[in-house]
Amino acid sequence: MKPLKVVVWGLGAMGSGIARSILAKKGVEIVGVCDTHPERKGRDLYEVLRVPPPAGRGALTISGDISGALRPGECDVCVVATASFVPQVFDQLVHVLNSGANALTIAEEMAFPRAGHPQLADELDRVAKACGVTVLGTGINPGLVMDLLALCLSAAMTDLESVHCRRVNSLSPFGRAVMEEQGIGLSPEEFNAKSASGAMAGHVGFAESVGLMAAALGWPVTDFQQQMKPILTEVERVAPYGRAAPGQVAGVEMTAQGLCQGRLVFDLVHPQQIEPEAAGVKTGDYIILRGTPEIHMRIEPEINGGLGTIAMCVNCLPLIVNAPAGLKTMIDLPIPRAVMGDFRDHIEPDRKIVK
Amino acid sequence: MKPLKVVVWGLGAMGSGIARSILAKKGVEIVGVCDTHPERKGRDLYEVLRVPPPAGRGALTISGDISGALRPGECDVCVVATASFVPQVFDQLVHVLNSGANALTIAEEMAFPRAGHPQLADELDRVAKACGVTVLGTGINPGLVMDLLALCLSAAMTDLESVHCRRVNSLSPFGRAVMEEQGIGLSPEEFNAKSASGAMAGHVGFAESVGLMAAALGWPVTDFQQQMKPILTEVERVAPYGRAAPGQVAGVEMTAQGLCQGRLVFDLVHPQQIEPEAAGVKTGDYIILRGTPEIHMRIEPEINGGLGTIAMCVNCLPLIVNAPAGLKTMIDLPIPRAVMGDFRDHIEPDRKIVK
Repeated sequence: MKPLKVVVWGLGAMGSGIARSILAKKGVEIVGVCDTHPERKGRDLYEVLRVPPPAGRGALTISGDISGALRPGECDVCVVATASFVPQVFDQLVHVLNSGANALTIAEEMAFPRAGHPQLADELDRVAKACGVTVLGTGINPGLVMDLLALCLSAAMTDLESVHCRRVNSLSPFGRAVMEEQGIGLSPEEFNAKSASGAMAGHVGFAESVGLMAAALGWPVTDFQQQMKPILTEVERVAPYGRAAPGQVAGVEMTAQGLCQGRLVFDLVHPQQIEPEAAGVKTGDYIILRGTPEIHMRIEPEINGGLGTIAMCVNCLPLIVNAPAGLKTMIDLPIPRAVMGDFRDHIEPDRKIVK
Repeated sequence: MKPLKVVVWGLGAMGSGIARSILAKKGVEIVGVCDTHPERKGRDLYEVLRVPPPAGRGALTISGDISGALRPGECDVCVVATASFVPQVFDQLVHVLNSGANALTIAEEMAFPRAGHPQLADELDRVAKACGVTVLGTGINPGLVMDLLALCLSAAMTDLESVHCRRVNSLSPFGRAVMEEQGIGLSPEEFNAKSASGAMAGHVGFAESVGLMAAALGWPVTDFQQQMKPILTEVERVAPYGRAAPGQVAGVEMTAQGLCQGRLVFDLVHPQQIEPEAAGVKTGDYIILRGTPEIHMRIEPEINGGLGTIAMCVNCLPLIVNAPAGLKTMIDLPIPRAVMGDFRDHIEPDRKIVK
C-alpha cells in the first residue's frame, strides 16, 4: 500500500505542528501544503519548519493557492488548520471534499457543527456523501478532554445524573489566532468593550462539547448558556505568540451550562491563560460524573493543548480514511488512540484513496 | 421501533446486576433468561431479583435450558454472563450467533480473544459473519480501565513510549466465580499449591488488555509475562460472596509486562482484594503514559468493578446492534458512553433484528 498522502492547509502554530508531527511518522507523507501568509507562501516547507526533508525528497513549495497543493486523486486526507468557526472553513472543506479527499479539520466548531450551524452541517454531510469521502472535526478541546473523555468514563456508569468538567490550562502553546480570540494583552476596558460587541470569542467549543455529549448520551439539552470574564495578570507574562503586562488580560475564565428541562446536566468550567505558572496557577483536567457509581478523574498537569490538538489530528488520520462517507464526529468513530508504527497498518485497503 | 429485546444467560452476581440494570432502562426489555443454578432455575426472574415486573408484565420463568429462553427472531442481543474463559463460553456464543442474535459477553478473555485463543477467535468471526450478527466482549477490566481508557488518552500524544496502568480495587462486588478464581479465604499454603498447579486464575485479562492495546497502537508485543502473589489479611474481612480470616488470602496482587523487542512498553499492576478499606488500603485507577506530552491520570476511588462491568455491558447494547457482522472488540466500535433516555434512539433501524 502506498503511504497515506496528506495535504496540510494552514501553517499557523497548529498546522506547522501537525506537519512536523506527520514528518516524524512512518507510512504517511505530506504531498502538498497551502498557506497564504506572506512570510510562508512560496517558501520551502522544510525550511519554514526547520526540519530536514524526508530521505530522497527535495523541496516542497508552500502554495498560496489550494489548487497548487491539493490535486484530485493524489491526496487521502487534507488537514484544514486555518480557522475556528464553521462559516470560515465551510468553503475550504467543500473544496477538499469536491477534490475527492477526506477533510480533517481542527476548527473547534467542526467538533460538532450541528450545535451552531445545522444547515451547514447538513450541507457538508450531503457533499461528503456525494463525493464518497468523510469530513471530521477533532482536537483536544472540543474533541477530547471536556467531552469524549467524559463520555468514555460514563460508559462505566449504570446511571448518570450530571457531568462536571474543569480544564485549567495554559494557552501558551497556541498561535496568533487563539491569542486574538482570547483577548491576550488587552486592557480590562478593551476586553469588556470587545466582549460586549460580540467580537471576543474566548474559548470556542462549549456549545460543541455539550452538543457532542448530549447526542452521545441521549440527553435533549433544552437550555445552553455560557459566561466569560477576563483573567487579569498581576505579573508580566510572555508566551511565544502573546504577552500581557500587569493589569492586562492574560486569559479568559469561561463557564457554560447545559440544562435538560431545567436540570443542570452539563457544567463546564474552563479558565485558560498564557503562562499560568507565572501566577502560581496549578493546571489540570478534572471530570466529575455524578450518578452510579460516581467517578472523580484528574489529570495533572492538564493535557498540553497544543501538542494535544496536533496529536488528535494526526492520530485521527487512519480513522477518517476508514470511516464511511459523510459528516462524522468523534462519537461516530472508533476510539482514538496514538498511532505508532506504520500508519498503513491502521488503514483498511478498500478505503484508501491513493491506491 | 420495537424495544431492544435482550436475553440474559447467567444470573450470577454480574448477570443479575445486568438484568436489574436493564429493567431500569427505557426502550429495552428482557425477553428470556437462562440459568442452570438449582436455586434459580424454574423460578420467576422478578422474584429472584426482588424487583417488581415491568408494567403489564407477568412472571418470566428462568429457563434451565437456553432453548427455553432464546428463540430465533425474538432476540436482538443475548448477554452471556456465565464464565471468564473463551473455551468455557465458546459453545454458548456459537449457539447465540446461530440463533441469529448478537452475542455480548463479559467473559474477560473475550475482550480480546485472539490473545489466548486465535483459532477460536477466527471461528467466532466466521460464524458471526455467516449469521450476519456480531460477537463482542466487554467489561470494566479488561474492557476499559487498564486498556481502552489508556488508549483514549494516548490519542492526545504525538509520541508514546510506554503505558503504565495500576488498578487498586475492591473485589467485594463480584460473585462466587471471581472469589474462587482469586483464592479468597485460602491459606497461604493452599494458595501456593493451587497457583503452582495452574488452577489459580487470579485476575483474568492482562493478556487481553495488552493484546487490545498492542493491536490498537500498532505495537508488536514480542514478550508477555505476568506474576501473581497472595494478599494475606491481618484482619477479618467479610464480603457478600467471600470471606478471609486473619492469615488467609484476601486477594491477589497481579502484575504483567508487555515488551516490544526487549523494551518494556506495557506495565500493569493490579492488586485486588475484598474489603480493602478494612486494611486501610486506598483504592484508585492510575494511568501514566510516558512520551510527548506525558499524561498522569488518576481516578479515586477506583471505578467500582461490579457496577462498572454491569454498566459497560448494558451501555454496549446499542453499539453491538449497530456494529457490522463479525467478531469485534472495544477498539473497533464507537466510543462507549452511558446510554440515557430511550435505547431505541441509539440504534440504527436497519441493524435492528426484531423489527
